[in-house]
Amino acid sequence: MILSALLTSVGINLGLCFLFFTLYSILRKQPSNVIVYAPRLVGKSKSQGRGDFHLERLLPSPGWVKRAWEVSEEELLSTSGLDAVVFMRIFIFSLKVFISGGIIGIFFLLPVNFMGNQLSYDFSDLPNKSLDSFSISNVDEGSNRSPSIWKRFCRLWVHFSAAYVFTGVVCYLLYYEYSYISSKRVSYFYSSKPQPHQFTIVVRGIPVSSGSSTSEIVENFFKEYHHSTYFSHTVVHRTNKIQDLINEAEKLYKRLAFLKLEKFPRQKCKREGFLGFFGCKVDLLDHYEKKLEHLQDNLRVEQSSLAGKEIPAAFVSFKSRLGAAIALNIQQGVNPTEWVTEIAPEPQEVYWPFFSASFMKRWIYNLVVVVAYIALTILFLIPVVIVQGLTHLEQLEIWFPFLKGLLKLTFISQVITGYLPSLILQLFLSFVPPVMILFSSIQGYISLSQIEKSACNKVWWFTVWNIFFANVLSGTALYQVNVFLEPKNIPQVLAQGVPGQASFFIAYVVTSGWTSLSSELLRLMPLVSSFCSWLFSNIVEDFEVPSFPYHSEIPRILFFGLLGITYFFLAPLILPFLLVYYCVGYIIYRNQLLNVYAPKFETGGRFWPIVHNSMIFSLILMHIIAIGIFGLKKLPLASSFIIPLPVFTFLFNEYCRKRFLPIFQEYPTECLVKRDRADQNDPMMAEFYNKLVTAYKDPALMPVQLSWSTDRLKSPLLHDAEV
Amino acid sequence: MILSALLTSVGINLGLCFLFFTLYSILRKQPSNVIVYAPRLVGKSKSQGRGDFHLERLLPSPGWVKRAWEVSEEELLSTSGLDAVVFMRIFIFSLKVFISGGIIGIFFLLPVNFMGNQLSYDFSDLPNKSLDSFSISNVDEGSNRSPSIWKRFCRLWVHFSAAYVFTGVVCYLLYYEYSYISSKRVSYFYSSKPQPHQFTIVVRGIPVSSGSSTSEIVENFFKEYHHSTYFSHTVVHRTNKIQDLINEAEKLYKRLAFLKLEKFPRQKCKREGFLGFFGCKVDLLDHYEKKLEHLQDNLRVEQSSLAGKEIPAAFVSFKSRLGAAIALNIQQGVNPTEWVTEIAPEPQEVYWPFFSASFMKRWIYNLVVVVAYIALTILFLIPVVIVQGLTHLEQLEIWFPFLKGLLKLTFISQVITGYLPSLILQLFLSFVPPVMILFSSIQGYISLSQIEKSACNKVWWFTVWNIFFANVLSGTALYQVNVFLEPKNIPQVLAQGVPGQASFFIAYVVTSGWTSLSSELLRLMPLVSSFCSWLFSNIVEDFEVPSFPYHSEIPRILFFGLLGITYFFLAPLILPFLLVYYCVGYIIYRNQLLNVYAPKFETGGRFWPIVHNSMIFSLILMHIIAIGIFGLKKLPLASSFIIPLPVFTFLFNEYCRKRFLPIFQEYPTECLVKRDRADQNDPMMAEFYNKLVTAYKDPALMPVQLSWSTDRLKSPLLHDAEV
Repeated sequence: MILSALLTSVGINLGLCFLFFTLYSILRKQPSNVIVYAPRLVGKSKSQGRGDFHLERLLPSPGWVKRAWEVSEEELLSTSGLDAVVFMRIFIFSLKVFISGGIIGIFFLLPVNFMGNQLSYDFSDLPNKSLDSFSISNVDEGSNRSPSIWKRFCRLWVHFSAAYVFTGVVCYLLYYEYSYISSKRVSYFYSSKPQPHQFTIVVRGIPVSSGSSTSEIVENFFKEYHHSTYFSHTVVHRTNKIQDLINEAEKLYKRLAFLKLEKFPRQKCKREGFLGFFGCKVDLLDHYEKKLEHLQDNLRVEQSSLAGKEIPAAFVSFKSRLGAAIALNIQQGVNPTEWVTEIAPEPQEVYWPFFSASFMKRWIYNLVVVVAYIALTILFLIPVVIVQGLTHLEQLEIWFPFLKGLLKLTFISQVITGYLPSLILQLFLSFVPPVMILFSSIQGYISLSQIEKSACNKVWWFTVWNIFFANVLSGTALYQVNVFLEPKNIPQVLAQGVPGQASFFIAYVVTSGWTSLSSELLRLMPLVSSFCSWLFSNIVEDFEVPSFPYHSEIPRILFFGLLGITYFFLAPLILPFLLVYYCVGYIIYRNQLLNVYAPKFETGGRFWPIVHNSMIFSLILMHIIAIGIFGLKKLPLASSFIIPLPVFTFLFNEYCRKRFLPIFQEYPTECLVKRDRADQNDPMMAEFYNKLVTAYKDPALMPVQLSWSTDRLKSPLLHDAEV
Repeated sequence: MILSALLTSVGINLGLCFLFFTLYSILRKQPSNVIVYAPRLVGKSKSQGRGDFHLERLLPSPGWVKRAWEVSEEELLSTSGLDAVVFMRIFIFSLKVFISGGIIGIFFLLPVNFMGNQLSYDFSDLPNKSLDSFSISNVDEGSNRSPSIWKRFCRLWVHFSAAYVFTGVVCYLLYYEYSYISSKRVSYFYSSKPQPHQFTIVVRGIPVSSGSSTSEIVENFFKEYHHSTYFSHTVVHRTNKIQDLINEAEKLYKRLAFLKLEKFPRQKCKREGFLGFFGCKVDLLDHYEKKLEHLQDNLRVEQSSLAGKEIPAAFVSFKSRLGAAIALNIQQGVNPTEWVTEIAPEPQEVYWPFFSASFMKRWIYNLVVVVAYIALTILFLIPVVIVQGLTHLEQLEIWFPFLKGLLKLTFISQVITGYLPSLILQLFLSFVPPVMILFSSIQGYISLSQIEKSACNKVWWFTVWNIFFANVLSGTALYQVNVFLEPKNIPQVLAQGVPGQASFFIAYVVTSGWTSLSSELLRLMPLVSSFCSWLFSNIVEDFEVPSFPYHSEIPRILFFGLLGITYFFLAPLILPFLLVYYCVGYIIYRNQLLNVYAPKFETGGRFWPIVHNSMIFSLILMHIIAIGIFGLKKLPLASSFIIPLPVFTFLFNEYCRKRFLPIFQEYPTECLVKRDRADQNDPMMAEFYNKLVTAYKDPALMPVQLSWSTDRLKSPLLHDAEV
């Protein structure tokens, strides 16, 4: 790619971003958009929308930037929880890393690269200069001996030192951040109120005997072996069917309630046929009420016949946090596949469409998911390879000869090479996170947070493989999975492939990165759907405050980190674009966390280890590429001297795993006992224990009360009138 | 190697074995050898030696074989502990495996191999026939299409089916054995008496503050966080110096006691100079007594100045087994590198020449050991390569041309190719186990059993690498470590190398295996040293009942298992020799466990997972070789159909890890609580708790009582007179 193509791309994206930002500034002030841009505040009934019209409402204003900037970490912690704070720490960490990397890259590496003689050297035609002149490809080879002293000194040693310095900086920052977040996690635990999941574990694989019920077996076991700490238990039931019935009933009830509101008298009858346009008119109120009654009858029958649907799994609660930790950490039964214990999720985030109590089944599901994951990863290469074709116009001309004329136009060819590839890739990638969520839930995780964490990991490795490696390896025509069966050749192959893709990835940051930020801000999909529902649909859709999609956002941000770290010394030109991405992202995500997303769960910062590991992986990948590059550039000495770097990085990671990771898995005795003791004097505990007994009761088994939704339903649309 | 060379080797070894067995039958009946052949019975004062002379004493008799055979597993368990039972189960398991393997191999594979046409086919000259005619090398290739139906059916499919059947049998036996031993382990725990190590943990990395002593800090911490279960603690001191002084004093005291016995009046004075032959005569009694007094003074000074030598580590005892398990399994402090807990060893097996309380130091020591281990493994290749030269006589003739005439002699060449290589290898290998013990103790394990277990693993991998792979790869002239950097080529390289070494490994079983058994029985080294001490030395050496060297014996036996499994379908001729090895070994090791070795520790069968893993590794290695062989033999279909086999074996192993391994790591709550509850009604517990307080006191810090050794000292030599 030449410089002007990059600039075109940057121009298009800057324009788009500004357009989006302006649109956002205006749209967010319209009262009808409050459920799109501030659903969270609606949920809390704090919306600031006003019904009366001002001219101000049509003018863009940057006030939201200031507000997002001014919020302190403590405020974010109190409103959005530790996970949101940890998420924002990724931006702060990345900014620190790439500011230091940028200083080295722009002031030391870029001049060295540009002054190299490997590629054509011509100042006159800057716009048509290939981006490769700014990359390491342009630096002279090591064996090139010329008489001048400055030229005799191989400039690759500058890159060599930069790799060492940068690795040192990143490791220091990683350590600092890990220690900062783990201390936050501990203090968060100390300051948290007693919560049911702290006192509870999930037990699977309860050995059922024919004589007694699961409930009795659980009670006997825990009364026998944990008699001083055991508190209560709730056996799990298979309630999918009841849940379906309840959902249907609730939906129906909402419609009914809506119809009964006087504001929409015209809606009281409707034609029965296709889309409500044909068929005979019926009284909707009557129709729905009958349907609801029928459903409720069904429900009662199902609920009463539930005794036989016990699953050999239970939530077991203890009198203290330490009691739960004891049952969790020590193997319970003699057979390790029975009485398998696990941390309980918060009651509201229990989610197990694929829950299975049997050890063997879970294991098999796990295997199935691994196989499916690998298959998907391989199949996904097909779109990636096609996208790759777009950056190589010649290839495209061979495939589609009729496009030849069109592709000769500069603008079109620039759009195609600079913009289209990453947009298509992005489209395909958007299907990946939901699939990974599905995979993780099949694996048998029992809470949303665990599923998201596992999906986050899956999406990350998927992205690395399918975006980074697939592009790098296919770009060099050396694309074979075989490469990874011959580990010896990996550095060389990467060194041949990675620098060549610099321009693609710079464009990727600009298009995919910047665009994703502005579309995140504008929330195009919810906006359109809210507009549609206002325009066409006569019945208000379910309104729910969205939760933050950590599993798709974290890997995306981490992937830009990977690009920054690996290309830091190959093509430092990528760094300014990344810095813009992180700066803008910092503001936008803060804004979204405050206004849009409400936390559905709280993992207490458990996403950080994923961030840490991905950074370590990026560093080691960078080192491997460096080994290959110095080898290719005929500087074998530097190539060997780089080898200690991945070794030390690996050891550093091992140390961090030992020093910090345990804190992210479970809380230590010290914390548990301190909290338990603090609770002893708390008069609220009696009430808490009362709640604890029923905390994990399946909502499907509670008596159905169809009243909840009306209040919530009113708020979004009737807000203007009320406030 | 030709058949006659193998037969020579078998002949020599059979002769040696019979000689050794006969010698053993005679020597064991001599009363003076009782400390060599039945030290254990001496230790227990049950020796059956009699002073008066019988002719019977000079005649070999097989009575010991019968006695060793008749002992039941329960008796072995009660006299030698579960570890000895598990050790003998290796033989039973191996016999089961190789009897079924032998049936398949001898009756199905061997005829197929022998009827192949790849190598010369000549019944007339059987003695000069190469052993390769009995191996898979002789089987026709897959693409060889001939008109007859029998010949058109490729005989390699027999090998293919054999691999599947054999893997199934081995996996079944592995599962059965794992489950048998884990149930033994649990019932052993139930039947064991209360022991200090069940109630105790080791805590390292105690955060020391300047204000208070380590002891106070430990007490405060555990009283605070384990107030209901904490019992007592013992802080660790640095006592190497005191221990040295005590050892010296004890040695001196023993000599003194010995001198004072009236039986040896001639020994009361001795010359001072070199070896006691020169210099002026001194009264030994006087000399030793003065020295001892001086030592004791030193000792008292050292013991009193100990306060400053506290190490931030302690043994912490709890009131119940569950209490100890809780402190063991849950992270204690907020910082995971502090308050690091670990299972306590039995008091008598605490051994830590390289003990370190600091987390970082241990970690660095571990790294150092890994590096040293790799270095040793590589350096060891040098002797292996030289030994390899001996099996290829032509190579030897090139290296040492002057040997040409000598090597022409049939007998000498047969001895050299059949016997010498494995003997030399054996000699070098005998240095390995002590070095591995040293490595493991540097790693910071704190008990003999942990050190032996870790050393056992190290020796096993060392043996596999340096005996199996080094021989296989150097034999095919394809010897490069590089092979393992190109995983794709591994099956092919192994398939080329492994069958060629069949004759070497058959000879290895006969020489190294059989000889090791008979030398184990004869105990040549202790015999010689006891004879020497009786002949030359005037002062009785320390007498100690030896403990069983699991770390050197288990890998040896497992390595023969590896040979059997990998060569099972390549050269089934190896199986009869292996069966002889295991049958004889079964008798001999039972005899030795009953008479010679006394258990120094009891791991409760923790060595079994090592056996299991090594068998799984052997199976997978066999599969990889099969993939390569079928590829080489132009039967790619079989080669692909073998691939599921290692995958299933791997999954089977994963299942076993989940199903059985946890039981071998720690006891489950169920067991702990049951035992604790049983103890509550035991009147002996008060006494036990009294002992528990001082159980882990460093013996170096106790008041020195130099009386212990005299009783022990008397027993071996004065036994005849007493009994």
